[in-house]
Amino acid sequence: MNVVVGQSGGPTVAINASLAGVYQAAIQAGANKVYGMRNGIFGLLQERLVLLNETLSNDEKIELLKRTPACYLGSCRYKLKTADKSEEEYKKIFAILEKYDIGCFFYIGGNDSMDTVDKLSAYGQKIGSKIRFVGVPKTIDNDLMVTDHTPGYGSAAKFVATVIKELVRDTEIYDIKAVTIVEIMGRNSGWLTAAAALAKGEDCHGADMIFLPEIPFTMENFFAKISARLQTKNNLVIAVSEGVKLPDGRYVCELASCGQGEDVFGHKQLTGTALFLAGECAKRFGVKTRAIELSTLQRASSHLASLTDIDESCKVGAAAVKAALEGKSGVAATFVRTSDKPYHCETGIVAIEEIANREKTVPVEWICEDGAGLNEEYITYAKPLIQGELTPYFVDGLPKHLIL
Amino acid sequence: MNVVVGQSGGPTVAINASLAGVYQAAIQAGANKVYGMRNGIFGLLQERLVLLNETLSNDEKIELLKRTPACYLGSCRYKLKTADKSEEEYKKIFAILEKYDIGCFFYIGGNDSMDTVDKLSAYGQKIGSKIRFVGVPKTIDNDLMVTDHTPGYGSAAKFVATVIKELVRDTEIYDIKAVTIVEIMGRNSGWLTAAAALAKGEDCHGADMIFLPEIPFTMENFFAKISARLQTKNNLVIAVSEGVKLPDGRYVCELASCGQGEDVFGHKQLTGTALFLAGECAKRFGVKTRAIELSTLQRASSHLASLTDIDESCKVGAAAVKAALEGKSGVAATFVRTSDKPYHCETGIVAIEEIANREKTVPVEWICEDGAGLNEEYITYAKPLIQGELTPYFVDGLPKHLIL
Repeated sequence: MNVVVGQSGGPTVAINASLAGVYQAAIQAGANKVYGMRNGIFGLLQERLVLLNETLSNDEKIELLKRTPACYLGSCRYKLKTADKSEEEYKKIFAILEKYDIGCFFYIGGNDSMDTVDKLSAYGQKIGSKIRFVGVPKTIDNDLMVTDHTPGYGSAAKFVATVIKELVRDTEIYDIKAVTIVEIMGRNSGWLTAAAALAKGEDCHGADMIFLPEIPFTMENFFAKISARLQTKNNLVIAVSEGVKLPDGRYVCELASCGQGEDVFGHKQLTGTALFLAGECAKRFGVKTRAIELSTLQRASSHLASLTDIDESCKVGAAAVKAALEGKSGVAATFVRTSDKPYHCETGIVAIEEIANREKTVPVEWICEDGAGLNEEYITYAKPLIQGELTPYFVDGLPKHLIL
Repeated sequence: MNVVVGQSGGPTVAINASLAGVYQAAIQAGANKVYGMRNGIFGLLQERLVLLNETLSNDEKIELLKRTPACYLGSCRYKLKTADKSEEEYKKIFAILEKYDIGCFFYIGGNDSMDTVDKLSAYGQKIGSKIRFVGVPKTIDNDLMVTDHTPGYGSAAKFVATVIKELVRDTEIYDIKAVTIVEIMGRNSGWLTAAAALAKGEDCHGADMIFLPEIPFTMENFFAKISARLQTKNNLVIAVSEGVKLPDGRYVCELASCGQGEDVFGHKQLTGTALFLAGECAKRFGVKTRAIELSTLQRASSHLASLTDIDESCKVGAAAVKAALEGKSGVAATFVRTSDKPYHCETGIVAIEEIANREKTVPVEWICEDGAGLNEEYITYAKPLIQGELTPYFVDGLPKHLIL
């Protein structure tokens, strides 16, 4: 039996660890050939396959793969239409899968990618195919339902918290009033922005305010909070989600005059929230301001990966293989937390429709009453996910990556 | 004899290592009390001193200090007027130094800070003071004369090169045309932007183009280069210095409609170069674009410090102490490279006027003929400076810092 695996959607630091997990578990289970799709389902449609048995031929390569950011196989943002609207495409995919004698199809991705698994599995069932389709979730956004957290979130959260700590140090050196606004990814859910709360500790004051999309944002409240805080503190560091929204539902960045487009899924491209808010603060308070967008760095910084995240991301890949071998299809592997202290987490399997096309936001009970911070419940939840480090292989001063 | 040490100007990842170097060398040389100025000369004027013998009382604290970004003592951007214009200030400073029985004054900082050392030393000589004034250079900009390189540059360069590598990985995953513009600090010299060239290697295509302030920038040339490159490559990563200038001397970011101010030294605040260029590329080529400003992260990321930089920054602090003990004043410690392969670098001492108020730019011979990259001469120069890692002390998942 042969196996095919693909990666799709936006990258994370841990998506290659899940690929390693799928590959190793498949080989261990006796798979003959393990193919990788170049650029996800889009590349599969063009029969662009790579034989992982060759490119991941030894443990050193696999360890290097785990330390490589983004998608080793390349990615795509290709959304399959429903089978009744585009059956030719489905027929083509299944013909290719038959041609390569594929028994199991694994797809590592986010919400949109789980939808692809769902559709292919349903179509396969309809035509009586025996191919099993299993999803392996990933997203730095942590916004998938059912799973306790998502592979990739822990590393991105570790990066955000580390950078906030370092920025707090940087901003505190001057004895003047200043406001630094740090913009963090997260369209509809504030999970990654919430990670700014992890920076606080005995050696760091932490972020002064944290604004998530879960709580409607008003300029009045924003100004009032800053005004009050500047009475007693010189340097404020404020974390804002790129997706913070006004009470009328518009994104805050829509108040700015920045250009905006939409991606192929019809999602608005968000940018400029920090730049806009910093500009408004400068006007309002006459203080020095700085806008910092963590941008792509927060999903690409494998040099600061969470070992917990990487290990778990491997395991969730292996759990997907196990599920397929047990005959399951149209399912996704998940994390099930069994204990907070000590942290313990197992993998689970759920029907893919429970996870696809749904979003999980930060529970409002975990947000401070003033709407501008996270309480201990979030810290208890998130702290275990950033534990441990996977040190890069530094060669000649820089982290080494595995590339195709 | 007592000693006082201060930090001034913009932070680097290595400025605390120089503080550690000064402190350890002073103690070893038999200094009684080692005072730290809070917020540099500005804090000294207010007699805000801290006794480092107490706050750096053991090796663990000193090791932690070396792993802490920004300025442990705080910083200032306070430029002393000349003594003939502001003698009261000079009298006050010397009265405070006498009061605390200070024999040696060390100031860790950039160009403007070396000017402070120069002025104080000259005034001291004039009034017959025996206090010795020695500068310890630092800047991520690497733009100081005489010294082979500056403490702090190696770590910032390591961060820039690592991030460029990770961003190249991130951008290459999609099979579509895209242009990513990364804006890197450097007002008049392109040293730090040049570090993007270090990313290239057998596992990384590197940045596609690198634009420095040393070479006049034209939109025509920029567009022509991108247009040509997009014929054969999907995803371009372009590094630009915040300080790139048009042939008429204006900053490129002045073409944008972004708000700009000046800092207290009268330097224009530069921002928005990448945002402006990305917007122009989107209009011109109709491709996906992204603007990334590395912003404060490039000077604060102690989690990615270069061990070479940290070790050398300690040594340059110790060299300053040695010079003062030998009776030198009005001097600064520097680096003198004696060999490229194998890399070998010693400390030196120069008259401070050779280093203050002058800027060193990237030699034009080190820039590729097409003006959009660096050649092997730069690589040979810079590669040794990013070697080795100073792993943070991770506690509960995050780097631990030493704070006052």
